[in-house]
Amino acid sequence: VRLIESLATTTQLSEIFSDASILRAMLDFEIALAWAEAQLEVIPEAAAEVIATAAKVGTFNPSALAEEAIHSGTPAIVFVKQLTDLVRAKDQAAAGYVHWGATSQDLCDTAFMLLLQKAEQTIDKDLRRLEKALTHVAEEHKGTVMLGRTLMQAAPPITFGLKAAGWAAAVSRSHQRVATSFEKALVLQFGGASGTLAALGGHGLAVSEKLAKQLHLRLPDAPWHTHRDRLAELVCACGVLTGSLGKLARDISLLMQNEVAEVAEPTSSGRGGSSTMPHKHNPVGCTITLSAANRVPGLVSSFLSGMIQEHERGAGGWQAEWAIVSAVIQLTGLAIVSMAEVAEGLTVDVSRMRANIESTRGSIFAERAMVLLGTKLGRDKAHKLLEDAARKSAKEGRRLRDVLEEMEAGTSELASMLQDLEDPNLYLGSAEQFRKRLLASSSLRQEAPSKKS
Amino acid sequence: VRLIESLATTTQLSEIFSDASILRAMLDFEIALAWAEAQLEVIPEAAAEVIATAAKVGTFNPSALAEEAIHSGTPAIVFVKQLTDLVRAKDQAAAGYVHWGATSQDLCDTAFMLLLQKAEQTIDKDLRRLEKALTHVAEEHKGTVMLGRTLMQAAPPITFGLKAAGWAAAVSRSHQRVATSFEKALVLQFGGASGTLAALGGHGLAVSEKLAKQLHLRLPDAPWHTHRDRLAELVCACGVLTGSLGKLARDISLLMQNEVAEVAEPTSSGRGGSSTMPHKHNPVGCTITLSAANRVPGLVSSFLSGMIQEHERGAGGWQAEWAIVSAVIQLTGLAIVSMAEVAEGLTVDVSRMRANIESTRGSIFAERAMVLLGTKLGRDKAHKLLEDAARKSAKEGRRLRDVLEEMEAGTSELASMLQDLEDPNLYLGSAEQFRKRLLASSSLRQEAPSKKS
Amino acid sequence: VRLIESLATTTQLSEIFSDASILRAMLDFEIALAWAEAQLEVIPEAAAEVIATAAKVGTFNPSALAEEAIHSGTPAIVFVKQLTDLVRAKDQAAAGYVHWGATSQDLCDTAFMLLLQKAEQTIDKDLRRLEKALTHVAEEHKGTVMLGRTLMQAAPPITFGLKAAGWAAAVSRSHQRVATSFEKALVLQFGGASGTLAALGGHGLAVSEKLAKQLHLRLPDAPWHTHRDRLAELVCACGVLTGSLGKLARDISLLMQNEVAEVAEPTSSGRGGSSTMPHKHNPVGCTITLSAANRVPGLVSSFLSGMIQEHERGAGGWQAEWAIVSAVIQLTGLAIVSMAEVAEGLTVDVSRMRANIESTRGSIFAERAMVLLGTKLGRDKAHKLLEDAARKSAKEGRRLRDVLEEMEAGTSELASMLQDLEDPNLYLGSAEQFRKRLLASSSLRQEAPSKKS
Amino acid sequence: VRLIESLATTTQLSEIFSDASILRAMLDFEIALAWAEAQLEVIPEAAAEVIATAAKVGTFNPSALAEEAIHSGTPAIVFVKQLTDLVRAKDQAAAGYVHWGATSQDLCDTAFMLLLQKAEQTIDKDLRRLEKALTHVAEEHKGTVMLGRTLMQAAPPITFGLKAAGWAAAVSRSHQRVATSFEKALVLQFGGASGTLAALGGHGLAVSEKLAKQLHLRLPDAPWHTHRDRLAELVCACGVLTGSLGKLARDISLLMQNEVAEVAEPTSSGRGGSSTMPHKHNPVGCTITLSAANRVPGLVSSFLSGMIQEHERGAGGWQAEWAIVSAVIQLTGLAIVSMAEVAEGLTVDVSRMRANIESTRGSIFAERAMVLLGTKLGRDKAHKLLEDAARKSAKEGRRLRDVLEEMEAGTSELASMLQDLEDPNLYLGSAEQFRKRLLASSSLRQEAPSKKS
Repeated sequence: VRLIESLATTTQLSEIFSDASILRAMLDFEIALAWAEAQLEVIPEAAAEVIATAAKVGTFNPSALAEEAIHSGTPAIVFVKQLTDLVRAKDQAAAGYVHWGATSQDLCDTAFMLLLQKAEQTIDKDLRRLEKALTHVAEEHKGTVMLGRTLMQAAPPITFGLKAAGWAAAVSRSHQRVATSFEKALVLQFGGASGTLAALGGHGLAVSEKLAKQLHLRLPDAPWHTHRDRLAELVCACGVLTGSLGKLARDISLLMQNEVAEVAEPTSSGRGGSSTMPHKHNPVGCTITLSAANRVPGLVSSFLSGMIQEHERGAGGWQAEWAIVSAVIQLTGLAIVSMAEVAEGLTVDVSRMRANIESTRGSIFAERAMVLLGTKLGRDKAHKLLEDAARKSAKEGRRLRDVLEEMEAGTSELASMLQDLEDPNLYLGSAEQFRKRLLASSSLRQEAPSKKS
Repeated sequence: VRLIESLATTTQLSEIFSDASILRAMLDFEIALAWAEAQLEVIPEAAAEVIATAAKVGTFNPSALAEEAIHSGTPAIVFVKQLTDLVRAKDQAAAGYVHWGATSQDLCDTAFMLLLQKAEQTIDKDLRRLEKALTHVAEEHKGTVMLGRTLMQAAPPITFGLKAAGWAAAVSRSHQRVATSFEKALVLQFGGASGTLAALGGHGLAVSEKLAKQLHLRLPDAPWHTHRDRLAELVCACGVLTGSLGKLARDISLLMQNEVAEVAEPTSSGRGGSSTMPHKHNPVGCTITLSAANRVPGLVSSFLSGMIQEHERGAGGWQAEWAIVSAVIQLTGLAIVSMAEVAEGLTVDVSRMRANIESTRGSIFAERAMVLLGTKLGRDKAHKLLEDAARKSAKEGRRLRDVLEEMEAGTSELASMLQDLEDPNLYLGSAEQFRKRLLASSSLRQEAPSKKS
Repeated sequence: VRLIESLATTTQLSEIFSDASILRAMLDFEIALAWAEAQLEVIPEAAAEVIATAAKVGTFNPSALAEEAIHSGTPAIVFVKQLTDLVRAKDQAAAGYVHWGATSQDLCDTAFMLLLQKAEQTIDKDLRRLEKALTHVAEEHKGTVMLGRTLMQAAPPITFGLKAAGWAAAVSRSHQRVATSFEKALVLQFGGASGTLAALGGHGLAVSEKLAKQLHLRLPDAPWHTHRDRLAELVCACGVLTGSLGKLARDISLLMQNEVAEVAEPTSSGRGGSSTMPHKHNPVGCTITLSAANRVPGLVSSFLSGMIQEHERGAGGWQAEWAIVSAVIQLTGLAIVSMAEVAEGLTVDVSRMRANIESTRGSIFAERAMVLLGTKLGRDKAHKLLEDAARKSAKEGRRLRDVLEEMEAGTSELASMLQDLEDPNLYLGSAEQFRKRLLASSSLRQEAPSKKS
Repeated sequence: VRLIESLATTTQLSEIFSDASILRAMLDFEIALAWAEAQLEVIPEAAAEVIATAAKVGTFNPSALAEEAIHSGTPAIVFVKQLTDLVRAKDQAAAGYVHWGATSQDLCDTAFMLLLQKAEQTIDKDLRRLEKALTHVAEEHKGTVMLGRTLMQAAPPITFGLKAAGWAAAVSRSHQRVATSFEKALVLQFGGASGTLAALGGHGLAVSEKLAKQLHLRLPDAPWHTHRDRLAELVCACGVLTGSLGKLARDISLLMQNEVAEVAEPTSSGRGGSSTMPHKHNPVGCTITLSAANRVPGLVSSFLSGMIQEHERGAGGWQAEWAIVSAVIQLTGLAIVSMAEVAEGLTVDVSRMRANIESTRGSIFAERAMVLLGTKLGRDKAHKLLEDAARKSAKEGRRLRDVLEEMEAGTSELASMLQDLEDPNLYLGSAEQFRKRLLASSSLRQEAPSKKS
């Protein structure tokens, strides 16, 4: 991990998009291609054998390749040239069969698919971890009442279980999206110069099939050099997921404010500290997640803009993709891990939740009072009464119920109606039903969303 | 359609998001709500009847509602107030039951869903039209050879049928995405103040079910006031689709350049003209589509950024959605219709396609020459020969074959090998197989993608 | 204002981009053009007179024009055609001189500049209002101490005056940017078909000068049909401004939370209410501003993407600009007005600010304790001591000072050092100097930023 | 340069944002801070001396710092801790004075400013190179006529000199913007925990002044931890510039198409080649520039979204900035260099430009014919005649002039009028005046735009 991207990736994902990993994937493509072509007698088996052993990842100078890429618009050309030289050094005849029938974009796109294959597993694993932790919170706190908050103001009560179930369900829905779009996106790219595999004569499709199978990628209907919609769908799915994770992180960071103090991120050693303020306990996991959620939408936008790729190979749109997609995947993965750590170690202060309800002096039960009094006074009249009472209560800093009783001047019938007005447990409506329904559709409770598990 | 958005919507879609249409949807929600609650005896049936007839769309002043919205952050509050006054004028007791148990966002979100329901049909219909037209082109031109073009330079030949099939398949894949995401997104919003339907006591879920059925919307697991992922998925699906349409439009506008002149948009009366240049035949449909494809990615980005919505009702993210989503839907619909018109009336100049291949003086067959000569000379040597010949041919402006023959000094064997070097039909590889596979997965050939058809 | 954009514009700005206003601007261009050409005897004076009086705004059907625009990629062509017909009806000979030498984009771009001219004045006026209100707050509360808050956690104290001065200065800097970029952007567009004014022979520049003067626009070095950088700079300046306004709105909405309750938006009648919760006092102005700040970045992105306009007139990028720029200007204007209203009527609870400092039990003065004790113990040792004390204090819920005194076991010297540890007024550093410097650079204190005032 | 960003940076800029460079800048900040504080006797001079020599860049493990950053939300905290340990190893007393009075963000922001300082020089130098090359083209080809092209269709002629001058002027205007915004943005960040420099007592401003001078940064009115507008302006200026460079690249890549072939990128060894197509000469510099121009708008959008930073230190927005801004700067720098190389070595085929005009068969002179005939027939009648003639000419593939002469049946007067109709040099209007004006405002002709030159 480099300093400039210190809050933009994880160690694991950063490895997947490292130079060594990219070179490995590029070599894997060339070796598998030669093998597939040899199987179908498109090239001599001997050539395939030389190609398979001529080079190691360490043989290449990735920085030099990257700098050369500027002159040809892709690192593939120099890579193939160097590989060919290595093969030639071992066997002159074999050199002509390196990269046979393929074009630079075949190599780059398929190699990138092999990286995404690995990333998919990391992301899937961490999403399961996050869902599990959130589901646990949602179960544990099914009976914990807390303030609802709308437009950042106090509202009638909810349960923390319902809130956490909402988070879990959103993550679960996006897990499905991400899994589905990975599955659709992980396809072979192999089309040759113009996408017809002309250099392979009649063997194009057969070689493609073998090659795809060898690399554990699906075979698409046709090469997709300038049709990037599958990859776009994956990028978008990550965008939707980080949006939901950003919401989760925003909620938790708001609940962690000193004045609210209802939950807290775990405090493992050093976590959340400050260089100048020994007392600080910062919402670090939430901050990193919000940072990721801030960056991904712009990257999604760039990817979509770049889809306008000309004819059989684009000039500009395609060349931007490696950087965009790898950033999206790494930020997504980082956000997932960060929130998993937060969710797994979340501290919940149930009594503070109660106290914050208390501190609203019953004002959040105005709607409830309206319902209760409406049965007696008629709803229209009750509504007006409550508006006046709420205003008076806010102005004078008194409990809503006291004001109401005063205004209705001691009608003992009304007073008894309002007796348990402020019991939050009596005003939760369908909260528990909703909570259960949300958890029931979770991907954890159903069949595994992705093929691998 | 207003002038400021004259290239941003269609007449049909602009109607769907018009004031009258929004008011209709808002009324429909309130009426259906009252009806559902009356069925379950939550409110008196008499009240539901008054609510159902108290107001007409024309009764409201939409501009006044819109201006009032600034004071409460939503047009819903004034709307409900006015509706309540109208009901009260007819029946004092009924007034208290207007909007019973619902919150402003329930009204706004569900009304918007009703608009999207209509938009979905328009978009589905136009997508079918576009796919049909593209499929027709792909079938008609399966044997039409043309230049492949990579990085905007000539490349080995393809068929126009393959190119059109690529367009058709991309549109078809996005049709599936859009249909699926509409289906997922079209759900009821109904949660009351904090998303628990507390005001309805134990009847929340039952009322929700009736209400959803009445409005032909699916019932979600729970209210989704601050979980916007389903809508995000729809917005993204439109983004991916307009990306693919932008690619199609870019390709066609490039092929329409005077110097290329291989295809042309239809020239219905007035279409594509210029105010100063009587000779012009502008790619108007493509231009409008590219304009839409230029705008949608930024809108997708805004939507995703706005997903970070606080607690039980967001302050800022939600309030931006109507404008964003309605713009995305209208631009998407406009791009579909524009390309459908282009595809249906596309003029194809098959002989010009041939001529443009000719004008490359055989240089695009260098790869093929390499394959042919490689069998005789060895591929490595053939590659080097071709590089020299290609350079010489470009420099001297001569046919590649002539240069090659000269360089190989009259070897009659080689000469005969190169005899039909420049026949594009002999260098199409798997083009026809790919074309067929692409069309075979088209949604038109399969079961209908969306529930309605 | 239409319902779909009810939180996306103001009445005033919405008028500027209305059909009538656009038609007025288009007519103004054509009339001024004819007049300028007549002055230079490029066209007969009689023709200019007919053109000046042939049409009224009301004569045109804007919706029909907008729908026709789809067929030519601009509403200009039909507009010119209809205007020509109206002129011909009055004077056959004059008809040939309508729009003489101009191209559609000249008409559209210049008309749009005329709209921006008006918008600039509205925005400038409202920005002054906002700066004045913020400056007032910053002066009034120069001595009001409150919590600093970093990463949404309590930090050493600041003054509310400093905070408000920071807001004011950011708005002021962006006011300068917006004023400068309006001034640069408000230039004539006049280039004819290819941007050479060829149809005017040698009179091109002279006509341009007259025309620019007539329309109160600057004359650019040359037509700028596909060079949109000046407009881009304006759009960006609005993006930076709304970013700063969003920060202001976020701060205030956080301070308005029930648990914080340090400031409140004004409560004019109906403002900030809720349809279901009579007690609510929502941060409506902040919400609308955050909504605008959420939307503008994506619009900026679209504008910048659209700058890639081909040759002498672009296909796609340009056609998206009216909708993008008018949205940006309206959202910016709305955010300014919203925050001006908030700032002008802001309620500040000085004692609550004190109380929130109190409630941290002195923990925020850990850094200060470190400084104080460091002079005695050495800073390195003091740092370690404070870390332990802060942890203990947080764990046991005790005042930091008490813990410290206990740990240092009654050293009376240390005790006296810490005596006024928790007096926030003694730990404000350069706050007041910074406040003054910020206000001193405000545009209100300097020469007026824009030419008009 | 890493492979994943092989088309996203230059060697020079990649170095500026490398680990070593960041560590150097972080050390420079801490050393300068200690020095400034020692000068003002805030800390002992001896401590400053130890701090200045305790660490070298190579002492730190950047990857470990980056990975630790995840736990505190910034690499600064671990960096300061390690530096303190190194100082303590040399001198226990000095350890307490490391980072004295500063906060993590002071360190990160100021260090980043030091990187931008270097980047500014590289970018300024390369912009000068680009402007010079474009100006040269604009001078050399002042008399070279070529087709105007609007909506990607042939239009009346322009000169290549005018076109190049338009490019040069746009680059020059953005050079000014970038230089101005760098100058505004390069300011010290130094505010301590809450932005008041409280730990420095009354010395805050004095230390700030010394520190700023030492680091060659301007001193802002106040710390700007959550006011990011200056940096936003710089990011936007880069966005506007890459937009203009993208336009330039698009134009050249269009002119390089085989069928147009009017200009070509230079062919240095290996440049623009293809792995499979020896004949290819790809527009590599344009492609890379378009790729950069595709990515920057989304990054600008992310930066603007991230401006909404809470209170005295943001949670999410700020943490995303390093990655965003460094990407923007590197992509901008890459685009500048790429276009400079293209412009310096651009091949122009003047005769092909002529030939492409010829191939329109005079149709682009329809407007001119209208002007010429209008003087005789009246303009209204001439317009109608030309519309018919243009249609006929297009349909029958004949020269416009021939059709016109036939339609007007041999009127010798008209025939003589049309004699030199198709001489492009006679229909260039104000092209040369515009060209001169554009070049005259170039920054190269004026005072140097940036302070350093």
